Amino acid sequence: MTDREAVAAIEDHIRAAYAVGDADGVAAQYTDDAILMGPGKPAVVGRKAIADNFRPFFAAFRGELAQEIEEIEVFGDQAYMRGRIRIQITAKHGSAKGQFQGKYIAIARRDTDGVWRFARDIYNYDHPTPTRMSILGWLVGLFRR
Amino acid sequence: MTDREAVAAIEDHIRAAYAVGDADGVAAQYTDDAILMGPGKPAVVGRKAIADNFRPFFAAFRGELAQEIEEIEVFGDQAYMRGRIRIQITAKHGSAKGQFQGKYIAIARRDTDGVWRFARDIYNYDHPTPTRMSILGWLVGLFRR
Repeated sequence: MTDREAVAAIEDHIRAAYAVGDADGVAAQYTDDAILMGPGKPAVVGRKAIADNFRPFFAAFRGELAQEIEEIEVFGDQAYMRGRIRIQITAKHGSAKGQFQGKYIAIARRDTDGVWRFARDIYNYDHPTPTRMSILGWLVGLFRR
Repeated sequence: MTDREAVAAIEDHIRAAYAVGDADGVAAQYTDDAILMGPGKPAVVGRKAIADNFRPFFAAFRGELAQEIEEIEVFGDQAYMRGRIRIQITAKHGSAKGQFQGKYIAIARRDTDGVWRFARDIYNYDHPTPTRMSILGWLVGLFRR
């Protein structure tokens, strides 16, 4: 497997963990000191915080993540990746659903164990960021059933 | 000037152009094929489109941009930069104001003329993305005066 393929595979591992709601599995694809820069909130720093970030989300929702890689460039032990994401979420209880599409840049690093992981990851949506209120709306919809 | 300093200086040039509402001056800091990935809308592709993106904004608002660079890494003719941004805007007519804070990753490139420019630039806000509606709100506030 080339470095380029190994970097691309990070997305496959994240998508697989996302599909089964495995917060630690998603976080395992980030370096110990990774910085996840999502929209609508400050950066999340470190693998543990990244897992904690996904846990409540996966507790409430089933998610399906699709990524489309548009660019990968490898510079020795670091790599740059750019692409598009599409996320579909469905509340585990109730009928609430949501769909988001956006774009990202990630910086991957060959980690101390030789495995490529994301060290930096920033994304945004092509539409207004879903707010806590709209998430709350789905949850309220859920309890109304 | 080291490559690192030249990359950091891109931010100074953008800030200066921003302060005087110079859309072409901002766009001049991007490569001809640059991709500006802002929140709340699809990517803007190419220097001309980037200038056109800033023109209506600068027509309506005076903006003040502050950047805090947190990381720069140079890989030959390309560089990675990460940091924080803070934007303060004031309507040119009326009293509407806004303040945004966020984070970004930019990929800079030593361009064909030897000058470092941004080839990729993605950012998001730490709070919900200002929507067209809220921008409209400011403009409506403006005409109410």
